[in-house]
Amino acid sequence: MSFDLVLFGGTGDLAWRKLMPALFQAFRHGTLPEGGRIIGVGRDDLSHDQYRSLIQSRFDKVDLAKRPSAEEFARFAALLEFVRMDLSKPADYARLASTLQERNADTVVLYVATAPSLFTTVCEQLGAVGLNNAKTRVVLEKPLGHDLASNRAINQTVRGIFEENQVFRIDHYLGKPAVQNLFALRFGNALFEPLWRREHIANIQITIAEDLGVESRGAFYETTGALRDMVQNHALQLLCAIGMEPPINSHADAIRDEKLKVLRSLKPWTQESLSQDVVRGQYASGTSGGGKVPGYREEPGVNPQSNTETFVALRTEISNWRWAGVPFYIRTGKRLAGRDARIVVNFHPTPHAIFNSQIGMANRLVINLQPKDGLELHLLAQGQDNRKTTHAAGQSLVPVQLDLDFDKRFGSGRVGAYERLLLDVIDGRLNLFVRSDEQEEAWRWVEPMLEFWANDAQGPRLYNSGTWGPSASSAMIARDGFCWSEES
Amino acid sequence: MSFDLVLFGGTGDLAWRKLMPALFQAFRHGTLPEGGRIIGVGRDDLSHDQYRSLIQSRFDKVDLAKRPSAEEFARFAALLEFVRMDLSKPADYARLASTLQERNADTVVLYVATAPSLFTTVCEQLGAVGLNNAKTRVVLEKPLGHDLASNRAINQTVRGIFEENQVFRIDHYLGKPAVQNLFALRFGNALFEPLWRREHIANIQITIAEDLGVESRGAFYETTGALRDMVQNHALQLLCAIGMEPPINSHADAIRDEKLKVLRSLKPWTQESLSQDVVRGQYASGTSGGGKVPGYREEPGVNPQSNTETFVALRTEISNWRWAGVPFYIRTGKRLAGRDARIVVNFHPTPHAIFNSQIGMANRLVINLQPKDGLELHLLAQGQDNRKTTHAAGQSLVPVQLDLDFDKRFGSGRVGAYERLLLDVIDGRLNLFVRSDEQEEAWRWVEPMLEFWANDAQGPRLYNSGTWGPSASSAMIARDGFCWSEES
Repeated sequence: MSFDLVLFGGTGDLAWRKLMPALFQAFRHGTLPEGGRIIGVGRDDLSHDQYRSLIQSRFDKVDLAKRPSAEEFARFAALLEFVRMDLSKPADYARLASTLQERNADTVVLYVATAPSLFTTVCEQLGAVGLNNAKTRVVLEKPLGHDLASNRAINQTVRGIFEENQVFRIDHYLGKPAVQNLFALRFGNALFEPLWRREHIANIQITIAEDLGVESRGAFYETTGALRDMVQNHALQLLCAIGMEPPINSHADAIRDEKLKVLRSLKPWTQESLSQDVVRGQYASGTSGGGKVPGYREEPGVNPQSNTETFVALRTEISNWRWAGVPFYIRTGKRLAGRDARIVVNFHPTPHAIFNSQIGMANRLVINLQPKDGLELHLLAQGQDNRKTTHAAGQSLVPVQLDLDFDKRFGSGRVGAYERLLLDVIDGRLNLFVRSDEQEEAWRWVEPMLEFWANDAQGPRLYNSGTWGPSASSAMIARDGFCWSEES
Repeated sequence: MSFDLVLFGGTGDLAWRKLMPALFQAFRHGTLPEGGRIIGVGRDDLSHDQYRSLIQSRFDKVDLAKRPSAEEFARFAALLEFVRMDLSKPADYARLASTLQERNADTVVLYVATAPSLFTTVCEQLGAVGLNNAKTRVVLEKPLGHDLASNRAINQTVRGIFEENQVFRIDHYLGKPAVQNLFALRFGNALFEPLWRREHIANIQITIAEDLGVESRGAFYETTGALRDMVQNHALQLLCAIGMEPPINSHADAIRDEKLKVLRSLKPWTQESLSQDVVRGQYASGTSGGGKVPGYREEPGVNPQSNTETFVALRTEISNWRWAGVPFYIRTGKRLAGRDARIVVNFHPTPHAIFNSQIGMANRLVINLQPKDGLELHLLAQGQDNRKTTHAAGQSLVPVQLDLDFDKRFGSGRVGAYERLLLDVIDGRLNLFVRSDEQEEAWRWVEPMLEFWANDAQGPRLYNSGTWGPSASSAMIARDGFCWSEES
């Protein structure tokens, strides 16, 4: 199966940091279908060879498991081409279309990794020159809009040009092995499904913590914030994967139908819950990575009076038979105490305690997404390390942990998120991509928070860099009688 | 709390191989109560010091985590005394009684580790000299009888002399950390109880495999066999621990009441089930430990036409609401392919498969008793090690395993089975000891097999040493559509 992969934004950040390395890895691993061509599109005047050299020089800055030899890179580079385009000029699209027609590949992937403001223009122009035919697939990077209205506008334009099953909306969290494993864990194993419900689960905590600040992206972040950057997409996708009903099969729409149902079941916001169940924070100066770091308002490109949130913690519920009353906590932020993405499923304690020391200790399943990818099952066992105590107190229980480290299990040669997603686009598998109705529903649920904050004079709560966010985050969860997993 | 521990059979095998090392470990770990005296009883004419030297010399042959220094042994040896007794002479008991009365310890433990034929005599004589008073506890080693009638006779005699709560019937499997952990696992964790029933569990397999033959114990084994030696006690105790309802508390009788209920719920034998659901085997020559080994009938002390079983595999059910219809398989034998005691809980496969390669693959919890002590939880996960296959076949699942190694978790300083049990006797904790009604109920259930075999001209099925027993064992389990865990 031959393919042409056209990369709009071919000289941009995402292209050289993520997409080209992912395509190279797939090439190296022999999973990139033969007969492919990767066409970078940009406004610079580059020859194919200049473009290849550009990518090669940038490869030095990215994390490839093993540096390619000159010979290996040359074989990969033979797939690379460059097309100069001014994305505002219809003639340039016509030229692109005829180039692609000449080649007549089986599949044409149009990856729109440009500035978001260009998405609709690019799609319209592609449609105008017929590059929306049955063999084309369009890949859209986030952000697709900055609120419900703008997201709907983009989706409406795109829908007028492409069929829904031609549109691949990227949420790279769905490409992470740990997230795919979450589906496998839940629906490939008989063990968890009976436990996966309100009768057995006390609460679920989704944490996506970064230790870095906004770095050089202050100006971008000012208009985005943690809610749009992380909650509307990644965190809600994780929530869907944890909370969804078993899909009827593993086809894309079966899975996306169930995710959509979760989003539609999220407890609607009220003025009360918006003020009590959502904590927005912003990092102040502090200590991170062993050194002093500045506060968000001191970062380059940031308004010194900025109210942009760099931290969100919230509590929600999925209002259905399975989950009614079970709190789902989401927390994400920058400059936190660690770089750590994980989902923690806290089970109820035993209904009846027959051992000493059992009260208040409960089972927990931890799904680690990063930096490690693995599972931890926290149990209680007979203590054996302290003979005196064990002997004197009778049957005392102590925490133990069953572990599974996927890197150890599968070795280092795992498929990265973008590698997985790019291969799926080329293959036409939509499972790990977001459907427009999902995306809109997520925006619909997120929007009340944005509106509430716009009218909330209090602004974000400051927290010291290198901590787990404002104390209001712990207070919020403590109201339910629980605590964040790192505090228990 | 002072104690006198009187060891009848003080120069015997059990004393120097198991009991003295266990007492020494407790001493070394500081868990043996202060003010204790350990009194070996034997027919030899030994001074205290000669007895101490005898024990010291034997310590060289047993596995202590660390050899004691002369100084350390000397401190332990100061607790040791020797009393010469002819166990058939009432006067010798009177002398023992007055020795113990002089000392007037808070607790007197009478450990009867003599030949089984002496149990009732010893108990009667102890009663005759008043050594059945409230501060005495009697410990009885197996075998307590060789069938229901003889077991009841012994228990009846003992019951006429001691109160039930003074009688500590040893089944050293109950002292194993893994078995205590089984109670902790089931009743200290909320996770397992909802799954621990017929709705979720397909079958349970209890294996106690030895790689050794009868060694020098041929004459003893001839009158015993695997059913009496391993099934009536150890295997059934494991079955009780796996199958019992949650006890109301952790007191001895609450636990033993529930174990008794399991034994009473075991499916009664019929002529049909005795012929189909029980396999008796006897090892023939073969290869074990890298060398040729003789068959059972060629072992010293064994009748060359012996029909004594060195292997039993059986299928039973616990007829109650929790377990109706779930097969429990028990298997034990000598000269098998490994030294390996474990309980395997096989869960049902998922009721609905949405992934490729999922059919027939199911979850499994393995509780390892020896040689390793730990847990394995077998799950299915997204395969990541084979990109080509994963990519081409979509979502393929592969087996993965969550592990907990108790030795690693708790270090090497764990409490051994006899150490645990001896400390419990001194402390008066009956939880890990077998009540007479349990023991009798186990004999009642085992006896039909003994009777059936006595009238079965076929004799045991021969199996090659170094295998997993006769093929009839695999055929038995295959009738249910299952296989032994090492074959799956």
